[in-house]
Amino acid sequence: MYVHNDDRVLLKVIEYVSPTSAGADCEVWRAGPRKKIYIRPEEVKAAIVTCGGLCPGLNDVIRQIVFTLDKYGVKNIVGIPYGYRGFFDDSLSDINLTTHYVQNIHLSGGSLLGVSRGGGQTSDIVDSLEKRGINMLFVLGGNGTHAGANAIHDECWRRKMKVMVVCVPKTIDNDILLMDKTFGFDTAVEAAQRAISAAYIEARSAYHGIGVVKLMGRQSGFIAQYASLASGHVNACLIPEVPFTLHGPNGLLVYLEHLIHTQGSAVVCIAEGAGQELLPPKGSKDASGNPVLSDTGVYLQQQIKNHFIAAGTPADVKYIDPTYMIRACQANSSDSILCTVLGQNAVHGAFAGFSGITVGLCNTHYAYFPIPQVIDHPRRVDPSSRMWHRCITSTGQPDFTPRA
Amino acid sequence: MYVHNDDRVLLKVIEYVSPTSAGADCEVWRAGPRKKIYIRPEEVKAAIVTCGGLCPGLNDVIRQIVFTLDKYGVKNIVGIPYGYRGFFDDSLSDINLTTHYVQNIHLSGGSLLGVSRGGGQTSDIVDSLEKRGINMLFVLGGNGTHAGANAIHDECWRRKMKVMVVCVPKTIDNDILLMDKTFGFDTAVEAAQRAISAAYIEARSAYHGIGVVKLMGRQSGFIAQYASLASGHVNACLIPEVPFTLHGPNGLLVYLEHLIHTQGSAVVCIAEGAGQELLPPKGSKDASGNPVLSDTGVYLQQQIKNHFIAAGTPADVKYIDPTYMIRACQANSSDSILCTVLGQNAVHGAFAGFSGITVGLCNTHYAYFPIPQVIDHPRRVDPSSRMWHRCITSTGQPDFTPRA
Amino acid sequence: MYVHNDDRVLLKVIEYVSPTSAGADCEVWRAGPRKKIYIRPEEVKAAIVTCGGLCPGLNDVIRQIVFTLDKYGVKNIVGIPYGYRGFFDDSLSDINLTTHYVQNIHLSGGSLLGVSRGGGQTSDIVDSLEKRGINMLFVLGGNGTHAGANAIHDECWRRKMKVMVVCVPKTIDNDILLMDKTFGFDTAVEAAQRAISAAYIEARSAYHGIGVVKLMGRQSGFIAQYASLASGHVNACLIPEVPFTLHGPNGLLVYLEHLIHTQGSAVVCIAEGAGQELLPPKGSKDASGNPVLSDTGVYLQQQIKNHFIAAGTPADVKYIDPTYMIRACQANSSDSILCTVLGQNAVHGAFAGFSGITVGLCNTHYAYFPIPQVIDHPRRVDPSSRMWHRCITSTGQPDFTPRA
Amino acid sequence: MYVHNDDRVLLKVIEYVSPTSAGADCEVWRAGPRKKIYIRPEEVKAAIVTCGGLCPGLNDVIRQIVFTLDKYGVKNIVGIPYGYRGFFDDSLSDINLTTHYVQNIHLSGGSLLGVSRGGGQTSDIVDSLEKRGINMLFVLGGNGTHAGANAIHDECWRRKMKVMVVCVPKTIDNDILLMDKTFGFDTAVEAAQRAISAAYIEARSAYHGIGVVKLMGRQSGFIAQYASLASGHVNACLIPEVPFTLHGPNGLLVYLEHLIHTQGSAVVCIAEGAGQELLPPKGSKDASGNPVLSDTGVYLQQQIKNHFIAAGTPADVKYIDPTYMIRACQANSSDSILCTVLGQNAVHGAFAGFSGITVGLCNTHYAYFPIPQVIDHPRRVDPSSRMWHRCITSTGQPDFTPRA
Repeated sequence: MYVHNDDRVLLKVIEYVSPTSAGADCEVWRAGPRKKIYIRPEEVKAAIVTCGGLCPGLNDVIRQIVFTLDKYGVKNIVGIPYGYRGFFDDSLSDINLTTHYVQNIHLSGGSLLGVSRGGGQTSDIVDSLEKRGINMLFVLGGNGTHAGANAIHDECWRRKMKVMVVCVPKTIDNDILLMDKTFGFDTAVEAAQRAISAAYIEARSAYHGIGVVKLMGRQSGFIAQYASLASGHVNACLIPEVPFTLHGPNGLLVYLEHLIHTQGSAVVCIAEGAGQELLPPKGSKDASGNPVLSDTGVYLQQQIKNHFIAAGTPADVKYIDPTYMIRACQANSSDSILCTVLGQNAVHGAFAGFSGITVGLCNTHYAYFPIPQVIDHPRRVDPSSRMWHRCITSTGQPDFTPRA
Repeated sequence: MYVHNDDRVLLKVIEYVSPTSAGADCEVWRAGPRKKIYIRPEEVKAAIVTCGGLCPGLNDVIRQIVFTLDKYGVKNIVGIPYGYRGFFDDSLSDINLTTHYVQNIHLSGGSLLGVSRGGGQTSDIVDSLEKRGINMLFVLGGNGTHAGANAIHDECWRRKMKVMVVCVPKTIDNDILLMDKTFGFDTAVEAAQRAISAAYIEARSAYHGIGVVKLMGRQSGFIAQYASLASGHVNACLIPEVPFTLHGPNGLLVYLEHLIHTQGSAVVCIAEGAGQELLPPKGSKDASGNPVLSDTGVYLQQQIKNHFIAAGTPADVKYIDPTYMIRACQANSSDSILCTVLGQNAVHGAFAGFSGITVGLCNTHYAYFPIPQVIDHPRRVDPSSRMWHRCITSTGQPDFTPRA
Repeated sequence: MYVHNDDRVLLKVIEYVSPTSAGADCEVWRAGPRKKIYIRPEEVKAAIVTCGGLCPGLNDVIRQIVFTLDKYGVKNIVGIPYGYRGFFDDSLSDINLTTHYVQNIHLSGGSLLGVSRGGGQTSDIVDSLEKRGINMLFVLGGNGTHAGANAIHDECWRRKMKVMVVCVPKTIDNDILLMDKTFGFDTAVEAAQRAISAAYIEARSAYHGIGVVKLMGRQSGFIAQYASLASGHVNACLIPEVPFTLHGPNGLLVYLEHLIHTQGSAVVCIAEGAGQELLPPKGSKDASGNPVLSDTGVYLQQQIKNHFIAAGTPADVKYIDPTYMIRACQANSSDSILCTVLGQNAVHGAFAGFSGITVGLCNTHYAYFPIPQVIDHPRRVDPSSRMWHRCITSTGQPDFTPRA
Repeated sequence: MYVHNDDRVLLKVIEYVSPTSAGADCEVWRAGPRKKIYIRPEEVKAAIVTCGGLCPGLNDVIRQIVFTLDKYGVKNIVGIPYGYRGFFDDSLSDINLTTHYVQNIHLSGGSLLGVSRGGGQTSDIVDSLEKRGINMLFVLGGNGTHAGANAIHDECWRRKMKVMVVCVPKTIDNDILLMDKTFGFDTAVEAAQRAISAAYIEARSAYHGIGVVKLMGRQSGFIAQYASLASGHVNACLIPEVPFTLHGPNGLLVYLEHLIHTQGSAVVCIAEGAGQELLPPKGSKDASGNPVLSDTGVYLQQQIKNHFIAAGTPADVKYIDPTYMIRACQANSSDSILCTVLGQNAVHGAFAGFSGITVGLCNTHYAYFPIPQVIDHPRRVDPSSRMWHRCITSTGQPDFTPRA
């Protein structure tokens, strides 16, 4: 039942006839328990920390890490409260984690440990690890958090501390390189249906109704894309990867006017990062270092209203932003399984002696990746992919690309 | 199985010892089929119209009116599209309604017929009724729509047109006088839980998290009150009927600071009409004649942020407005039954020869009310009622009443 | 904000013209906090026990009793495990209940304390109360449990022990006399929709499909009645109160044949206690003393199959019994509010010095009833009521009454 | 945006170090639109037929086939009612399918067209195709239906009829060779949670409670396996691929006794085909030719009861069979997307000139398979796979394998 150390997951799945193959040739380690473990369970003091914003499944991963550590025989497990802040804020105490304590935490959304944005000095965190005697660190977070975890790993190495640092990617946007999907994404797509369905019903029931739904997706439009595909009710899906124009003959507004005149209503789904080029940049950054985005959802709603007023056509525009109601959901079954296997494999990886790695699903198999390999830049929707093409086939939207 | 014409529902249910009784002494007609019908089914041309905003259960009522008319033998039933607009907008066509057509419409939220705000001239509408030969009109709408329906009834009477005008109150806010509850309210309270639960989870998972949920309730805070009671997670419930102060020692902000320091998080539920006195009036009115309210939800969120910045305490404030996601829901079972019985009784009322009435649930029994009796002013939460007291007992909130 | 001791809820709400009024003239005490309390909080040791089968909302009531006791200042609260068994099974330990412990128990179905059927000797239980020093006992259960609680109250009185025994009726069947509805019923009706909807979809998608759904209701068919009304998809609703015949020209089977030939499919909803007269009695009783019922659902399915085989008409009969999936649900909002108020009022009642009472909703108001007043026999569907008539109007079923 | 005719999906994704590789070396065609189409849209008369039992997503696939045909310009589309029966039962009429007609059918479970089991003579069906002029046939069904479709394809070829026969695998059990997953499976796993959760709550709330849930899975236990993994509450998962013993020291019953004594409750999830070897074979077959299985769920429940009675330990065993409530569900988002893409690709395949193929997801890519390649035998859970190991790690169950 063990995985051999040299088993690999091939990243190339399609044999393209054309010479410009999109399939990479690199390989990654297959995840799973190894015959030989590199640290004795009774010596382990493990810590779990959750960083960034909420994402469905955090508690499932925490729970499974605790369960799997327990099966290895580890008794000493703590949760670091409120992300990296828990390492240096002395007013906060670690949470002792036992299988009893985590038994039913997966039935609730959010993170039992609390989350927060922002990092803190790597050296402070490593000092804290040293002081607390933590030698196995599980980090759940996004790109920035992964970079931080890698820096922690490097610093531990430099200090010759034997600490295993293993990440589990937490990004509801599903924007991690090389991975089929990250946990929480599937739940987010499903939870988004409620908002799109409400927008559709409001739009259809109103005279000249237009529903606008803003979904998550700062740099990658996967949620908007998949939610639109799943719904079957979206007439235009706008994502950061595909610039669009509002005005002019091939703009969104004329298309909406056309829909109102032909079918009486319309639904638009926009990712939060879409159309940022239409607005002046805000300049500021949040605590995670992400640029604060202008709210294109609100902007879009206003532009649509103005356009129809100017056109002399009544229109009833309703705007829905379900972000927090999506993020706080309990994981659905599919994500629950994903989280369970990721949690198990994170622990297997640490016991196999890996550090500075992250675990993910790759071509339907679970694999370990060196952190730098997956965080160079966010994974993004490929506008020339079959999947994007399926999406716009399903919405029926024309090409809104700005023309010179 | 018939109801006798003189059966009455008593409005007084509690025998209060104290002299200032809240129970009125008036009586209303018991709803139900009468032995004698006042119009021959084959002579009926019935019309249904839905006005105002969406409310869960509209399709259930429409469906049941059609079914019940069909059982009486009425063949000629039309739906007026998009509220009163359908009476005078010549580009819109009536919708022929059959039992087959409405068979499964209750499985979807919204209104099959479409809704719109605003009225139009009573005389134009009556002209339209006359032209179309409609002699039985079912009107689903709120206070304003009821007033309009009553005017239509009066004008028909004046013109000696034999038209039965029967209303079914549609107000998600549950603010109709004398009625136990109106359809859609129960569903709204239930659907609001998702938002409150998300706010709770976001607040608990964040460091010093505060969740603010805005719910419907322009003049009456029933949804906020009941949703807070049902949730068990709300720390402060703010409604239009109970003025509150933000600042000062007994203000909301100091209370929130207290909660953050003692339990680390807080959840506030605010009705859209609450705290209007804190903001400059907007002055304008919407198409239904309702004053446009300032958005206290957004204002409150901003005030909380400012307060905590000024206090030097970090706070992570999240704001959720689930309005459209609530309104567009399918009716839950309880509302579905309510709608079924209201729809049946609306038709019974019309055949019993009633006009200018509306049908509702009163002290657990269905009754017919003269329209003017129930629309004099909105029903409101009584701040001295046991139910409001239960709510604030459950939230634990102190008295925020502004002090001189 | 206090209720006056002499406030009463009138049971008569309808003024019937006919002399045979169904409205009783008796009165019950209005529930709520009294100005004067009859026991000092610091002297209270309160116990909560849940008996019988599961019902949505048990945890909500437990939680609110604990919260309200805490507000009165009671520190000493225990949960008795697994019903009355917890009083005399020495292997079981009481559960200390605090507000922290019960904070989120309402988010889960079932009973935190565990339930079990059956009683035990009253004197043993009172011995146990005496030994443990319990002087306030909250009992959640059905008719049998109420009888047991009343016996406990009597025995305490006889022994001159000052113990307040206050019940909250727990019967998913909604079969308690004089009460508008009991907690869990609304959730059960809603949860039943999933089963009825599945039966409808299976029936419609199959060639000559017939779906049979068995719902709870041993002696009272309220769940089947309300679930049928809410669904709008049921063609025949069978309840214990209305005998029916299977065979013969006015029997159910001929009606189903008619439906198959005219609309191609049919859905039947049967309460578990319906049609017991068609089957030989089982004779045995369960631990609660209820007679074990024959399974008419399975019997009905078999009879339908046989009939269609004999008639030479293919029929695809599917049988669904969702009982446990309904009982284990979390309470919906409406029940959650009901539970909250019942729990609060149970505590208010005990502090007001009431014992041997139960608390319920009566004509939209909360009231205290002497136990014997409500458990003389189960409340049952009145076949001549408007509500039953609405149900059969909605299903369209003919009269299946056996004829001489 | 077109797929090149020679693009292939590699079936081998893992490079195993061990010589006994589980990864096959064969390749299949990549699915998608081709530049060249092999039939003119205006000449197409397309038919869709759904066979076998219900599966979430049928309506999604039908809808998308109609939409995609419409985009190609096909005007002539019919639905064959009630599976293959619709080809030869003259009392049934084809259903004209338009984009308007199918617009919202995905919001409901079941099959708009109706399903039925069983085949009929291939030659009769091909006669029917010929008579109706159908030259593009989309078949949704399981293994048997695929075999039938392949026979139809062969017979058309023999008769030199130019008919494209394209299948979409419909098997809620997810038991088709080479495919990552089939539509409906994900929804089934998710819907099964309600039953498992109810079993868990019933078991935990009862004194010595044991919940038994039977899930679909005649020959393959994927649903039970994944549902157990997702739930986190299952103590034993029993599937057809892994024989188990009830009695004896390593049997299930002793394990359950152990659980009752240590944790007080237990939950068992059993696939319908598991443990058939424990029961006498029934011998008969259903209309699809599948052997009628003995009901191991009921048998297991009885064996558990008997065992605990014999052991003198009280146990409260509850049995839940949610099969029909799962099958009739609306597809969840993930399946909705899968169905959308399968439906699109089925049409692309037919226009690309493929016949006798089926479309599926393979290593995260959509592919066309020759029918015989995927129906040789059902795909089954590999008891030596990492996924099964994860499942039993999660349940904690010991090895129940019968010993000599």
